[in-house]
Amino acid sequence: MIYLTRRERFCAAHRMFREDWPDDKNKKVFGKCSNPNWHGHNYILWVTVKGNVSDEHGFVVNINTLKLIIQERIIEKLDHKNINLDVDFMKGKIATTENLAVAIWNELKPHIEIDGALLHCIKIAETENNSIEYYG
Amino acid sequence: MIYLTRRERFCAAHRMFREDWPDDKNKKVFGKCSNPNWHGHNYILWVTVKGNVSDEHGFVVNINTLKLIIQERIIEKLDHKNINLDVDFMKGKIATTENLAVAIWNELKPHIEIDGALLHCIKIAETENNSIEYYG
Amino acid sequence: MIYLTRRERFCAAHRMFREDWPDDKNKKVFGKCSNPNWHGHNYILWVTVKGNVSDEHGFVVNINTLKLIIQERIIEKLDHKNINLDVDFMKGKIATTENLAVAIWNELKPHIEIDGALLHCIKIAETENNSIEYYG
Amino acid sequence: MIYLTRRERFCAAHRMFREDWPDDKNKKVFGKCSNPNWHGHNYILWVTVKGNVSDEHGFVVNINTLKLIIQERIIEKLDHKNINLDVDFMKGKIATTENLAVAIWNELKPHIEIDGALLHCIKIAETENNSIEYYG
Amino acid sequence: MIYLTRRERFCAAHRMFREDWPDDKNKKVFGKCSNPNWHGHNYILWVTVKGNVSDEHGFVVNINTLKLIIQERIIEKLDHKNINLDVDFMKGKIATTENLAVAIWNELKPHIEIDGALLHCIKIAETENNSIEYYG
Amino acid sequence: MIYLTRRERFCAAHRMFREDWPDDKNKKVFGKCSNPNWHGHNYILWVTVKGNVSDEHGFVVNINTLKLIIQERIIEKLDHKNINLDVDFMKGKIATTENLAVAIWNELKPHIEIDGALLHCIKIAETENNSIEYYG
Repeated sequence: MIYLTRRERFCAAHRMFREDWPDDKNKKVFGKCSNPNWHGHNYILWVTVKGNVSDEHGFVVNINTLKLIIQERIIEKLDHKNINLDVDFMKGKIATTENLAVAIWNELKPHIEIDGALLHCIKIAETENNSIEYYG
Repeated sequence: MIYLTRRERFCAAHRMFREDWPDDKNKKVFGKCSNPNWHGHNYILWVTVKGNVSDEHGFVVNINTLKLIIQERIIEKLDHKNINLDVDFMKGKIATTENLAVAIWNELKPHIEIDGALLHCIKIAETENNSIEYYG
Repeated sequence: MIYLTRRERFCAAHRMFREDWPDDKNKKVFGKCSNPNWHGHNYILWVTVKGNVSDEHGFVVNINTLKLIIQERIIEKLDHKNINLDVDFMKGKIATTENLAVAIWNELKPHIEIDGALLHCIKIAETENNSIEYYG
Repeated sequence: MIYLTRRERFCAAHRMFREDWPDDKNKKVFGKCSNPNWHGHNYILWVTVKGNVSDEHGFVVNINTLKLIIQERIIEKLDHKNINLDVDFMKGKIATTENLAVAIWNELKPHIEIDGALLHCIKIAETENNSIEYYG
Repeated sequence: MIYLTRRERFCAAHRMFREDWPDDKNKKVFGKCSNPNWHGHNYILWVTVKGNVSDEHGFVVNINTLKLIIQERIIEKLDHKNINLDVDFMKGKIATTENLAVAIWNELKPHIEIDGALLHCIKIAETENNSIEYYG
Repeated sequence: MIYLTRRERFCAAHRMFREDWPDDKNKKVFGKCSNPNWHGHNYILWVTVKGNVSDEHGFVVNINTLKLIIQERIIEKLDHKNINLDVDFMKGKIATTENLAVAIWNELKPHIEIDGALLHCIKIAETENNSIEYYG
């Protein structure tokens, strides 16, 4: 079993808040992350798949195919977008990195498990100090 | 003459566009950076001052003082904010990194030139691939 | 189950040696790390906690609370200090990164497991080439 | 149980292709990685061993010993070399990072498990975006 | 005057040697960099242009245009190639980073000075420890 | 004129204080950097030399020669040492990064200007946020 990780990046705006909470409660729970006019990040995404090494070509999966799937399913929907307003798979969810990691897992899983490989981990760094990992 | 550089970071949303241009012209000139619902970045800011090393304490300037000035004048106004909507010194300007670097220079210059040091350079990285430097 | 990692940094002096060994044995076992007048590092610390994502706020734990606990329990005791001489939870231990990781785990565990989250990993990088992980 | 990771680097040329495939099939499967005149990378290698912390010296293993073993068994054979042509333990294998990680595991395992420690992981980054992990 | 820097990357093989020197002289002058079967690097290239900020759009130059010029003129010719054998603008030159920086300057200068901007610097990092800058 | 930069690293302890000042004045001016039991850093040093590219071998200077000079004159004296107590060229100076950069310049200049190259810049990063440059 070999683990292959592809790093991708996207720049997006977001805001953490609940519509059903008053402003002061949002402020108390989410702090400056709930500022009303949005803020944003250079998110870094690591997608890890696992599988056997093919005797034929020596890959777990072809990384170019993997890259295209991540680009089409995830990066094009998130890059230079507003996570709260523009991203179909985040609709109705609080825009935390935790929820984003789970949503990206669910988006990718049906499409990325090619050539017998399995999705193993979604890791997202929101800043150089804060990151999230999800293993399904 | 010694050059001292302090790195700081801020996470902000922005959008590049001109109100007096139609949407298609904004799209043509600014591309995905003009998406209407904002996007954002983890901006990295490097402030460089230059001066003589003090015989008394061996510093160009006290870096804790420098840090507080940058925090108060720049980071508190930009971090977790929308550059187009929330930042007084960017009002009426297109929110490019070029304009941001010049505006930060103008904001900092009257306050940061302590102990005989001079402001030398404002450098901002918007992504790991794109950065701007301004020397006044 | 989601894993949340917070990165923190501290700058500290240390020296690896045993008082009950002669100098030449300390030199043989610990090499230049046993130099008598200390040396130091910019240590990087990653604290990983794991737990379920709250439906209420979309977090595993509030990262600001996590940050404050790590600051108060660990960083304030280590940053700009001498690990051998100044740090209560390292007293009587050889100041290796291995022992430091275990000690930080023991210091943090009773305080950091808030909101149902569990401490998962303490990782410390001593240099860009050497790092230690401890999972309890 | 503590995990200790040592980072090393090597600069090498390689090419992905099969001699028993025609050029167009190599091109289709391996893309630009099959270009006939080679290309190369600054590979980063992380070797992780695991074991108990010694009461005597506070290490899992002495990192200087570990470093020498990795240098002698791996880095000297790969650094400034051609992976396809110069490296005995890669002869007859397609020069993918997957195959390289498995081969390095097999080379190191008999020599690196000193002081009761076990080899835990070989991680190789080929570029800043692509990496492989192997756990045996 | 504002300075805008774009970072790009390319993975290439090379070898330092002179055909008119015997092997032992090449070995003496160039060391392991003259190994006959090539080695390679993940080169990082920073292209800096300087100019005035446009009142119309707030840019020095449009970074997407800049990116396309660097891609077409430089990256496509170097990435996944052999610098000694495949790159027209390096023919007949020793494949040092110094010569590469000068050659890239000469390749880019006639094409990259758009919108009144001037080419300011070509910087290339061959490894994380060695880099070259050329200002024309 | 080409600029060549070599990066080196050293891990050292230091403390900022003046013996002729009382403790409270040292504390007021130098803050936690004056803690009596020392602290330390992973210092990063960049040495830049400038010169013409040799037609004979395509280098400004041979980087292996440069590396050896920096190792012998600087790194061996600073690495795993106490800057205040162990380093001859820092005796009697306050151990700030500013003073260290000037002292390293003075140590290297007579030895590093080989093959017609000139010393151009000494840059030292004390932490990921603070750095100093000196151009003589």
